[in-house]
Amino acid sequence: MPPPDAPPGGCLTDVPGIAVGHAHRCGRGWRTGTTVALLPPGAVVGVDVRGGGPGTRETDLLHPQATIATAHAICLTGGSAYGLAAADGVMAVLAARGIGFPVGTEPGEVVPLVPSAVIFDLGRGGVFTNRPDAGFGRRAAVAARPRPVGNGSVGAGSGARTRGLQGGVGTASQVMPGGVVVAALAVVNAAGSLLNTTSGLPWEAGDDPLQRPTATERAALRRVMEASVPSLNTTIGIVATTAALSKAEAGKFAAVAHDGLARAVRPVHSLFDGDTIFGVATGRDELAEADDPPRTRTVRLNAVLEVGAACFARACTNAVVRATRLGDDPAYLEVCPSAGRRRM
Amino acid sequence: MPPPDAPPGGCLTDVPGIAVGHAHRCGRGWRTGTTVALLPPGAVVGVDVRGGGPGTRETDLLHPQATIATAHAICLTGGSAYGLAAADGVMAVLAARGIGFPVGTEPGEVVPLVPSAVIFDLGRGGVFTNRPDAGFGRRAAVAARPRPVGNGSVGAGSGARTRGLQGGVGTASQVMPGGVVVAALAVVNAAGSLLNTTSGLPWEAGDDPLQRPTATERAALRRVMEASVPSLNTTIGIVATTAALSKAEAGKFAAVAHDGLARAVRPVHSLFDGDTIFGVATGRDELAEADDPPRTRTVRLNAVLEVGAACFARACTNAVVRATRLGDDPAYLEVCPSAGRRRM
Repeated sequence: MPPPDAPPGGCLTDVPGIAVGHAHRCGRGWRTGTTVALLPPGAVVGVDVRGGGPGTRETDLLHPQATIATAHAICLTGGSAYGLAAADGVMAVLAARGIGFPVGTEPGEVVPLVPSAVIFDLGRGGVFTNRPDAGFGRRAAVAARPRPVGNGSVGAGSGARTRGLQGGVGTASQVMPGGVVVAALAVVNAAGSLLNTTSGLPWEAGDDPLQRPTATERAALRRVMEASVPSLNTTIGIVATTAALSKAEAGKFAAVAHDGLARAVRPVHSLFDGDTIFGVATGRDELAEADDPPRTRTVRLNAVLEVGAACFARACTNAVVRATRLGDDPAYLEVCPSAGRRRM
Repeated sequence: MPPPDAPPGGCLTDVPGIAVGHAHRCGRGWRTGTTVALLPPGAVVGVDVRGGGPGTRETDLLHPQATIATAHAICLTGGSAYGLAAADGVMAVLAARGIGFPVGTEPGEVVPLVPSAVIFDLGRGGVFTNRPDAGFGRRAAVAARPRPVGNGSVGAGSGARTRGLQGGVGTASQVMPGGVVVAALAVVNAAGSLLNTTSGLPWEAGDDPLQRPTATERAALRRVMEASVPSLNTTIGIVATTAALSKAEAGKFAAVAHDGLARAVRPVHSLFDGDTIFGVATGRDELAEADDPPRTRTVRLNAVLEVGAACFARACTNAVVRATRLGDDPAYLEVCPSAGRRRM
C-alpha cells in the first residue's frame, strides 16, 4: 500500500535514491518557495533549456563535453534570478554532509554540484523583495525525503501562476515492462494554458479523475484565463529514470521531456518562458545485455524517452489540478469544482 | 596622459561605460577574491564556455535564442561553485540602484542579470572553507570604477595559480583604425603554462618589456613548473568592444577570444579547466554605414574578432607578468627577476 500522502500517479521519489524536499513561505507579503531533489551517488545528469528567458546556474557543467557527468542535487526555486541564491543553501547542506565532487586531500573537501533553475514569481505575495534566499535552499534540502512528499501548491510551486490560475508542483511516475522506473516533477508557472477552454479540462490527462465542468464553470474559467496578463513565466522540472544513461543521453531524455511539456501546456517555450528540464539517470538498470543485438538498447532507450515525455506531461497537469489557492490566483478546482467531484 | 595606475597596454575600462572593481581577502587563511565588471545600459552580451569543468551562472540567457540580449554586470570570482554566491551581492548592489531588467510596475522592480564564472582556488589561503560570498560581490561592485583599476594578483586573481606560479588578473586594450575600441580582462588560473621553459619568456608577448632570464633563472622556473601538481584550474574573462554587435556576434567574439587564450596558455581548454569568456558589445560604433557594400561589415567584424583574440592573449600574459606573491606560489618575476629588469 502506498503511504497516505503518495500521489496516485506516483512521484519523482519512485526512482530509488532520489529525495525531494520543499520550503516555502506564504502570507504577510510572501508567496514563494524552493524545491530540492537530492540525487543518489553517481547519478548522471543532463539538461535542456528551451525557454526564451531562462534563469539558471551550473548548467554548463551538464554539457556532454564537460568532464563531470554527475550532480548532487537539483534546485528548483521561485524568486527569478534572485532565487539562484537558494542553491548556496543547498550546497551548504551537502558540504556539511561531505557530499560533493572531491577536490582536496581531506574527506570534507568537496564541491557539491547543484544545477538550478528559477521561475518568475516576484511580487506575487505582495512584496517584490520577498524571495527565496540561501535559507530556503537549506530548509528544502534538510526536509528532503526519499518518499512521496507534498505536491500541488508547495515549494517552488507556491508562487506559481499559469494563465491566471494558481500553479504548483506536480509529479508522476511509471514502471516500464522489465522494471525500469521513469518519473517526473514539474513546477508549472507557464504563460500558456494547461486547460482547453472548450471542454474546461486539461489538454493532457493527469492522474486525478476529472469530469467535464458545468457550462457556468467553463465560462468562469474562460473569464479567469482571458483576464490574465502575460507575464514572465516558466515551467521547470526534472525527469528521472533508473536506467543507465550516458550524460548525452540524459540530455536527450530532458529534451524529449519538453515534448511532454508541449502537449500539456499551450502555447509553450515562449520568449517569456524560461522552460528548463533536467534529465537524471541513476544507472540501476542496464537497458541491454552485452549479447543483445546493438539495436535493442536504442529501441529501449526510445521507450524510456517516450515515457519520460508522458510522465512530464502528467506531472504538469497534476500540478494544476492539485493546486490550492495561496494568494490572488484561484485554483482550477475552485473555479471548476464539479470537474473534481468524483474524487471528493 | 593616462593616470599613474593605468596599465601600459590599456584596460577593459578603455571601453567607455564599463567599470571594473575588485574585492579580495588575503592572509589568515584567506587567498581569494572577486572581480566585477559593471556594463553600460544596452550592452549586448554573449558567452563561450569551452573548458571541461565550468562553474557558471546565468549563461543560458546569453544563448542567441534566448530573449534578452543584455546583461548588467559580469562577475568573475574565486571559490569554485561556492563562489557563485558572489553574484548574489552584485545583484543586490544593482537592484538597490534600480539597475536591472524591469519586471514590475514600480521603478525599482528589476531583476539584474549578472552572468558569472568561477575559478578553482579553494584552500589556497590555507582554509578550505574560506571563499567568496555575497559580501565579496557586493564590495567588488561598489568598488567598480570606469577607469583603470589594479591588475596582477588582485580580485578574482588573488587565489589564482598557473603551473606553480601565482596567477592574476590581466587586462589590455587596442584602438582600431576608425576608433573602435577592443579590450580584454583575463583571470588566469590555467592548468597549462604561459611560459616557454626554453626561453623563460611568455609564449605570447604582453605589454611589459621583458628580456630573456638567466640560465639559472630558467632552471628555477622549470623546477617550479615541473613540481606543480595538476589541479582544477580555469581561465575566465571578458572581451569587450565599442562596436555594435548582435547577441550571436557577441558570442562569436567570445569564441574567437578563446583563440587568444590558446596562443597564450599551453595546453588549454583541458578537462580540468572551466575556461569561459564573455563577449560584450556596447554599441557605440556601427561597423558599416547603410550604403556600404554588405561585405564591408563582415570584414570589419572579422577584424574586431581578431583584435579581441590578440587583446585576450596579451591580457593573459599581463596577468602572469604582473602577478605578485600572495601565498605559497612564487610570482614569475620573483623566479626570473632579470626578465623584468628593463621595467624596474
